[in-house]
Amino acid sequence: MADPDFQDIKDIPLTHRAAISDHVGDYPTIRSVPTPQASSLRPGEALVRVAYAGVCHTDVSITMGKGTDLPIEPIIGGHEGAGYIVALGEQLGPGKGLKLGDRVGIKFMADSCLTCDECLDGAEESCADLAVNGTTQAGCFQEYIVSRNVHLTPIPDDVSLAEAAPILCAGLTTYKGLLNAGLREGDWVVIPGAGGGLGHLAVQYAIAMNYRVVGIDTGEEKKKLLEGYGCHKFVDFAEEKDIPQAVEAAIGGKAKAAIVATGVIQPYQQALKYLGMRSTLVCIGLPHNGLFEIDACQLVITSSRIVGSSLSNRIEAKRALTFVSMGKVRPNIEIREFDELADVYKELESGRAKGRVVVKLF
Amino acid sequence: MADPDFQDIKDIPLTHRAAISDHVGDYPTIRSVPTPQASSLRPGEALVRVAYAGVCHTDVSITMGKGTDLPIEPIIGGHEGAGYIVALGEQLGPGKGLKLGDRVGIKFMADSCLTCDECLDGAEESCADLAVNGTTQAGCFQEYIVSRNVHLTPIPDDVSLAEAAPILCAGLTTYKGLLNAGLREGDWVVIPGAGGGLGHLAVQYAIAMNYRVVGIDTGEEKKKLLEGYGCHKFVDFAEEKDIPQAVEAAIGGKAKAAIVATGVIQPYQQALKYLGMRSTLVCIGLPHNGLFEIDACQLVITSSRIVGSSLSNRIEAKRALTFVSMGKVRPNIEIREFDELADVYKELESGRAKGRVVVKLF
Amino acid sequence: MADPDFQDIKDIPLTHRAAISDHVGDYPTIRSVPTPQASSLRPGEALVRVAYAGVCHTDVSITMGKGTDLPIEPIIGGHEGAGYIVALGEQLGPGKGLKLGDRVGIKFMADSCLTCDECLDGAEESCADLAVNGTTQAGCFQEYIVSRNVHLTPIPDDVSLAEAAPILCAGLTTYKGLLNAGLREGDWVVIPGAGGGLGHLAVQYAIAMNYRVVGIDTGEEKKKLLEGYGCHKFVDFAEEKDIPQAVEAAIGGKAKAAIVATGVIQPYQQALKYLGMRSTLVCIGLPHNGLFEIDACQLVITSSRIVGSSLSNRIEAKRALTFVSMGKVRPNIEIREFDELADVYKELESGRAKGRVVVKLF
Amino acid sequence: MADPDFQDIKDIPLTHRAAISDHVGDYPTIRSVPTPQASSLRPGEALVRVAYAGVCHTDVSITMGKGTDLPIEPIIGGHEGAGYIVALGEQLGPGKGLKLGDRVGIKFMADSCLTCDECLDGAEESCADLAVNGTTQAGCFQEYIVSRNVHLTPIPDDVSLAEAAPILCAGLTTYKGLLNAGLREGDWVVIPGAGGGLGHLAVQYAIAMNYRVVGIDTGEEKKKLLEGYGCHKFVDFAEEKDIPQAVEAAIGGKAKAAIVATGVIQPYQQALKYLGMRSTLVCIGLPHNGLFEIDACQLVITSSRIVGSSLSNRIEAKRALTFVSMGKVRPNIEIREFDELADVYKELESGRAKGRVVVKLF
Repeated sequence: MADPDFQDIKDIPLTHRAAISDHVGDYPTIRSVPTPQASSLRPGEALVRVAYAGVCHTDVSITMGKGTDLPIEPIIGGHEGAGYIVALGEQLGPGKGLKLGDRVGIKFMADSCLTCDECLDGAEESCADLAVNGTTQAGCFQEYIVSRNVHLTPIPDDVSLAEAAPILCAGLTTYKGLLNAGLREGDWVVIPGAGGGLGHLAVQYAIAMNYRVVGIDTGEEKKKLLEGYGCHKFVDFAEEKDIPQAVEAAIGGKAKAAIVATGVIQPYQQALKYLGMRSTLVCIGLPHNGLFEIDACQLVITSSRIVGSSLSNRIEAKRALTFVSMGKVRPNIEIREFDELADVYKELESGRAKGRVVVKLF
Repeated sequence: MADPDFQDIKDIPLTHRAAISDHVGDYPTIRSVPTPQASSLRPGEALVRVAYAGVCHTDVSITMGKGTDLPIEPIIGGHEGAGYIVALGEQLGPGKGLKLGDRVGIKFMADSCLTCDECLDGAEESCADLAVNGTTQAGCFQEYIVSRNVHLTPIPDDVSLAEAAPILCAGLTTYKGLLNAGLREGDWVVIPGAGGGLGHLAVQYAIAMNYRVVGIDTGEEKKKLLEGYGCHKFVDFAEEKDIPQAVEAAIGGKAKAAIVATGVIQPYQQALKYLGMRSTLVCIGLPHNGLFEIDACQLVITSSRIVGSSLSNRIEAKRALTFVSMGKVRPNIEIREFDELADVYKELESGRAKGRVVVKLF
Repeated sequence: MADPDFQDIKDIPLTHRAAISDHVGDYPTIRSVPTPQASSLRPGEALVRVAYAGVCHTDVSITMGKGTDLPIEPIIGGHEGAGYIVALGEQLGPGKGLKLGDRVGIKFMADSCLTCDECLDGAEESCADLAVNGTTQAGCFQEYIVSRNVHLTPIPDDVSLAEAAPILCAGLTTYKGLLNAGLREGDWVVIPGAGGGLGHLAVQYAIAMNYRVVGIDTGEEKKKLLEGYGCHKFVDFAEEKDIPQAVEAAIGGKAKAAIVATGVIQPYQQALKYLGMRSTLVCIGLPHNGLFEIDACQLVITSSRIVGSSLSNRIEAKRALTFVSMGKVRPNIEIREFDELADVYKELESGRAKGRVVVKLF
Repeated sequence: MADPDFQDIKDIPLTHRAAISDHVGDYPTIRSVPTPQASSLRPGEALVRVAYAGVCHTDVSITMGKGTDLPIEPIIGGHEGAGYIVALGEQLGPGKGLKLGDRVGIKFMADSCLTCDECLDGAEESCADLAVNGTTQAGCFQEYIVSRNVHLTPIPDDVSLAEAAPILCAGLTTYKGLLNAGLREGDWVVIPGAGGGLGHLAVQYAIAMNYRVVGIDTGEEKKKLLEGYGCHKFVDFAEEKDIPQAVEAAIGGKAKAAIVATGVIQPYQQALKYLGMRSTLVCIGLPHNGLFEIDACQLVITSSRIVGSSLSNRIEAKRALTFVSMGKVRPNIEIREFDELADVYKELESGRAKGRVVVKLF
């Protein structure tokens, strides 16, 4: 089960490396912090040695104060990590639960109360008492992190930790977005930003789920990447004057859904033009200024929906990984050293990043 | 089965009375028009003698040119009627189908192709080839109307035709809106305009479906009407400065859904303020200027939805009547003479109408 | 929030009364046992002072060795209790959770692992590591019981503890059975044993859920009870030679579902005769010899289903109580003294019990 | 759109070839019968020139009197055909509908009333007034057949008629069976007879739907065929003494569903042994003696289901073809001449047939 690179993981050091921004607006620097010890774990908690952590646009937004909420300071970002359990607090309840050495994922949602109606109804992401990695508490841009067992995501043996990492946020977010689209086999779904960190996963999930996909992005490289996934149509936004018209031309009609994750608002507004009867606009991004205008009459006449989709619950996170395990989804990752994290932030800000960047902590 | 008032209905006259507006903007006047004869029916068609027809705000909007589409001229409105089959065209396909004397309802949706994917998927209301009573063809503000059998709605024996009429638009629209809200037992739903023609039915369906209801309207009379239905909370919009705050105070928190059918846009916008996590704003009205602003980030963070809901399919229309048959929903109707129709239009325009007005044609 | 009868509940005694059967086959006798103290609670646990506990046929079956599994000895039965939290272990995770004095229910399912796929998928009742009150651990036929917080069911303020008790097994079981029937408004459901402890609740839930109900039972008293709930048809099994035929005559056709909870197998087999196209036979009982014969061809041709339904998950348990809170379901209870429990067992064995018996512990 | 082989199809002959069994028990012989002419079509009907027709085990069972119903005599079988529309009756209702030259499929379900509750609810296969090709009326083992438009299935341009044919029964039946299994991504489904005419399609649909599959069949050839589809595990029934045990060993636990289509009853009974918690046994076959024994207690304790699945509705038939169009499912067909039909029947009876046999009529 253990990767050859991570055989000797049982010893817990006294300090570990963490990427820290003292204040909102600071790029992260690598510093040493005290490592929680096994004896300090509360019942139901685990200490996880983080092997890899994906870098999400939202990490940059939060650190730079452009997220929807301000993070606690000092800021340790990171909300899609993968690693090993190296210590466990007292086990609660029946069942075997997790054990030392288990490969587990760290999600954006760090914890929820598990007793409110939302949690009981399988919507932990809507719990009023959510703990969020990298925002309300330190995330996984550090070598060791404590988590409640119940919110760790087991990683299948046949999925590498490096590839698992981006599934824990980008993967489950796009998968859940597609679930929220309520599509049936053969339906057309449009994915703006199809070649990006979220988009390229959304395309793969959509194809695995038997939908027909229009990817919107630009350039020959992105086009080829998407064609390799089996993406049915490609619209190059740099070459089209009227994107909704180009989408309709590609489909030969209107689409049933759009999964929009972009940081600007135009693609949300545009989607309303190329979506048809009984269609769904799924919003999964957090655009900096998120206001846009809709027409109640148009929604009514077309029996259509605009749906906000955030994170996923715990079983959906496992299912998102199952697609990787079955060989149907494969993140396009670029592995970088942990101490390059500040550089990666800058590349994401400038749009230079390719695929999903994953930093290697061990 | 036949009401005592409608025993001798077999003879088809050569002419019948119809309420006609020659041009958009004209109030309807009662005139004589030729009656279709049994011999002229195409296969699969029925001739229906209309006993009662409900008067909907939308009739007035369409006639006055304030609807989303302009009607064909001359205009014969009416899209929630109830009557008897008095002639049948050739029967097609297996099964017994409808027969002479059957009590049937006329819906807003007069016909759909029944072969496109939307129709096959049970979403006839989203068919691209919809025929619509009172808009694309003459409606049921006339004594006789021709319809394809497949779009007539059988009326249960224990539901009076006068009470059935408003179910065929107001009833099925609010019932479908509640289905689209995706609520569970005990959830709170808010209904602005709760004492009106649509609202008072929405309240009754919501209570029958085991939801908790906040009705928004004004005045002691409306309050008492709604309390009689078991409406859990009442917010008087004339007495509250901050309606979203009043709704939250009534519930002790935020609501899971709002069913908004009003002709102005403010209640749609307001609803976004009192709706909570995983909530649904169901739009069922066609406000004259339907634009309003939403915040993508807010939708995402709350995992919420804005849903347009229009009409219903055929089985849902039957189920909407089933609630009346089981004694769980009862339209609050005021029966008026057919030749008062223009007056009724004016009362609806001025907001003077109480309950749902139904005109008596025979 | 606290009932006047239960004001002074904070003091935890050193011993409390429990109804104990030393061996399978023994009727329970009331004895004194040590009471767990606050200091001995593990994190996430609560000590509950039981006010009322319903007596279920299954308690008798288990104690007498006729259940599907043998209980641990000595046996303390009781799996539908209601009481107050009088002590709490260390609180885990975010959120406020439960607090001292909260009114809570004890279910048949005492605990589950909450980390397996079944638990994560909202099917805690299918967890492989289930703890079961009265079988794998001591139940609530005792004045004090320890439970993990996460499996306690909050009881709404407007539901009395005595009425809440039978909802925690009989109520949620029949409610879940109806959910598993997959019915739509107006559909016919048949309930054998409609006047019994489970049946009279099944009838009320079915009517609240807008189904049409045929109750099968015997005698004028049961008939009147059911008519009072609005039960649409009554079939007296003692007066009918051919029960399936009588059911079809009552409905005027075949039924869409049957909810069968009886301890003998015939009603399961009979149901297959009066169920029609796309129908569902929901098994919720545990008949002593549960084998019966089905015809694969008949199932296929009618597109029908046979479904086993057991307990419910935690949110469904809350919803089952919501129906009582909204005044739509009201258990027909007979309150008895705790020390009469052995008598109650004998009455249940002989079929003499009326309604649901609830024993009063304080 | 038209295949090069079928260019000149507009002329309707006076007679055409049909495969006729005069009496139950007779093998079919090819004879000449009068061809319906365009002028004799009723409104809403089409005349279809059949290009290919798949041969189903059920055709043999019906002809030999071993089906669940006796067919009308003389018998013309065939219920999965594909061809061209060569004449149309009067068009009814709005919309463009089908037109001359359209490529369409013939299903087992030839017609339904389209007005009963089952039809309105999208369950045409449960209509009480079903017309069935090859049983209640002559099927598509003839060069020309009349059908109501509404029950013809449009065939996508990129699906060959020969490959479309077996989808119209074997394909949609297995696809619907999988829908009825209610599985989630990554769940294990077991398919007995995985290498057969139905089974090899069930395996492909299951894999496309992201389930994990255990195929049960025998021999290296079948094993290789299934591995080529991506079937995860193979159990050779000829080499295993205890099939349920072998299935569990392959999975490493119990399965979530079985799709059983065999003509003998043992695999239905066996499935109950390897199915686990919340599992579904989907019966899609019509075994000659279909009785088997189930244990109500076992169903209840495992919250499991036994489901009969028959045919599909019209939109599901289209979706079944969509999988072929998207390249995710490909029938393994053997094309034979029409006049070899009696031989094919005998091969099916003896189990010698490989893949799905399709006869070529033009």
